[in-house]
Amino acid sequence: MNQKIKVAQFGLGPIGRSCLNLLAQRPAFEIVGGIDIDPALAGKPVAEICNLPEIEAGVVYPSFDAMYEEVQPDVVLHTAGSRAAVSFAQCRPILEKGLTVVSSCEELLYPAYRAPEETKEYDELCRSTGARILGTGVNPGFVLDVLPVCLTGVCRTVTGVYGERVVNASYRRQPLQKKIGSGLQPDEFRALWNEGRAGHAGFKESLLLIAHALGWKMENLTETLEPMIADHDIKTAHFEVATGLTCGLHQIVKAETAEGYAIHLDLKMYLDALDPHDAVRLESDPPVEAYLKGGVFGDSATVAAVINAVPRVLAARPGVLLMTDIPLAAGASHTSPLLAA
Amino acid sequence: MNQKIKVAQFGLGPIGRSCLNLLAQRPAFEIVGGIDIDPALAGKPVAEICNLPEIEAGVVYPSFDAMYEEVQPDVVLHTAGSRAAVSFAQCRPILEKGLTVVSSCEELLYPAYRAPEETKEYDELCRSTGARILGTGVNPGFVLDVLPVCLTGVCRTVTGVYGERVVNASYRRQPLQKKIGSGLQPDEFRALWNEGRAGHAGFKESLLLIAHALGWKMENLTETLEPMIADHDIKTAHFEVATGLTCGLHQIVKAETAEGYAIHLDLKMYLDALDPHDAVRLESDPPVEAYLKGGVFGDSATVAAVINAVPRVLAARPGVLLMTDIPLAAGASHTSPLLAA
Repeated sequence: MNQKIKVAQFGLGPIGRSCLNLLAQRPAFEIVGGIDIDPALAGKPVAEICNLPEIEAGVVYPSFDAMYEEVQPDVVLHTAGSRAAVSFAQCRPILEKGLTVVSSCEELLYPAYRAPEETKEYDELCRSTGARILGTGVNPGFVLDVLPVCLTGVCRTVTGVYGERVVNASYRRQPLQKKIGSGLQPDEFRALWNEGRAGHAGFKESLLLIAHALGWKMENLTETLEPMIADHDIKTAHFEVATGLTCGLHQIVKAETAEGYAIHLDLKMYLDALDPHDAVRLESDPPVEAYLKGGVFGDSATVAAVINAVPRVLAARPGVLLMTDIPLAAGASHTSPLLAA
Repeated sequence: MNQKIKVAQFGLGPIGRSCLNLLAQRPAFEIVGGIDIDPALAGKPVAEICNLPEIEAGVVYPSFDAMYEEVQPDVVLHTAGSRAAVSFAQCRPILEKGLTVVSSCEELLYPAYRAPEETKEYDELCRSTGARILGTGVNPGFVLDVLPVCLTGVCRTVTGVYGERVVNASYRRQPLQKKIGSGLQPDEFRALWNEGRAGHAGFKESLLLIAHALGWKMENLTETLEPMIADHDIKTAHFEVATGLTCGLHQIVKAETAEGYAIHLDLKMYLDALDPHDAVRLESDPPVEAYLKGGVFGDSATVAAVINAVPRVLAARPGVLLMTDIPLAAGASHTSPLLAA
């Protein structure tokens, strides 16, 4: 028996289409259709929309329920938003059927923070139907949360976790260059941040996932954002930024425990960034310091993180799951847990 | 309810005693006794043998069965050998009682390689009694296997995994300095290696754990060892090594798949090593390169890896388990899975 994992894609924006392209390359998966509220997409073949090679990948449905009448996936990949409460609600019909959702929703990395009531409610729903839902990605989802937790695994004691990510946004997609404030007056970008309309989503969630794994109760959780200011004129494929204007963001989350144990995460995403990298330093016994040259490239890695998690989530207990609840997701796995079942 | 995890220590050598010292610092654990075949230790208080602070830690029993008549642990930490088949046999009475074993036995990292029949047999035993057994550590167990697998989690494709560890053995324990051939004639050390009496244990197991996680079928698995030759006179607390004699080892394991995917792991452990570090490079999309300055210090980290895995193993399904079967072990966890049960 050679049963593939049947996958549906919820959300056909750039990340969703990128998911479909990677799924199409993995023999363990069979794409059974897409879900998107855009009426212009309804009924169209997924393969056509995504410029997939000549494969059978189903059509686009306006809702999960409409899809489920015709085709039943094992897993739904959800790439349709950043807010935990909204994502939970979007996934309700899927979870009611007892299916598994892996989502790129940033707040789902640690949903109990922004949506504590919903997390409890959906965890009960999942346990009653056999469903699972997990949020993952690269940031949040790997470099500033899962990787630090992984490194603590060889420590006798840990009293501090320090993470740093520097991303050169010059060659990233237009929406990302926009998100980081490219070309705005610094005060304009600060105002957007204060209104909750700018910045990297899911950053506090990264910190709280680390705290959760270490069993730490954090106090004084703070998050700040400052614009990075262009020190030379910058021109990308999407933006022209004059000296003195915003060319990116510098965002920091921090918290300490009552004992003084600290978690500090520092993110710079800006145009023409020097020395992009990811770094994790543990104040620990033994001390651990990891440096990832160049940093993990976000766009393609996020999609990989979502898809690589699928076999592990399918094999996990039902519930609202965290990355620290499932075994390590390995890249390029050719095996299907359904084969072993 | 505040139930602690009851732990017994099997093997009271240096690693076992170091385990007990770390356990004594962790409020989630209660030490209930030790097991060692050394008749000189039988009946002695564990706390006294290990110079533990004034805690109740039970006594030393000559066998698990003798202990079990008086006290029943939840978990046994096994630090009494490197061979999978021997370790399985030593742990049989524990597994027959349905208990959980976490071992530093190098070959248990991937026991199906050296002990395929026993792995099957003990997996069936564990499933029938509810027991679990896992092998872990730092090397093998983390830097050249679990960490590379963790890093593949954000990759769309992986075609090569390259790991390198350089350890400065000058400040390590006497047995380790001896194990790496310190002071031997190079040909003498090569002869020991050829007789299977020297070298780092569990190295092929590291490679095979990575292959297992990636779903790769490896061919041409080879392992080589060459002495590192002292280029100056070296004096440690335990050895004096003249120029031209062996001051350590350089060990390499390699294998490729039929498609040409490669895993190469390279280990140098020698006296006065320059630039000790751990490094992992993935040939992958996106590319990933991680550098751990100084490297993860082996002695204390091995003990931490064993103990940090305990809560995750206790919560896992019964069976012979691999590090890629359990969620990430976090350091310094204050929580007990028994509390949640």
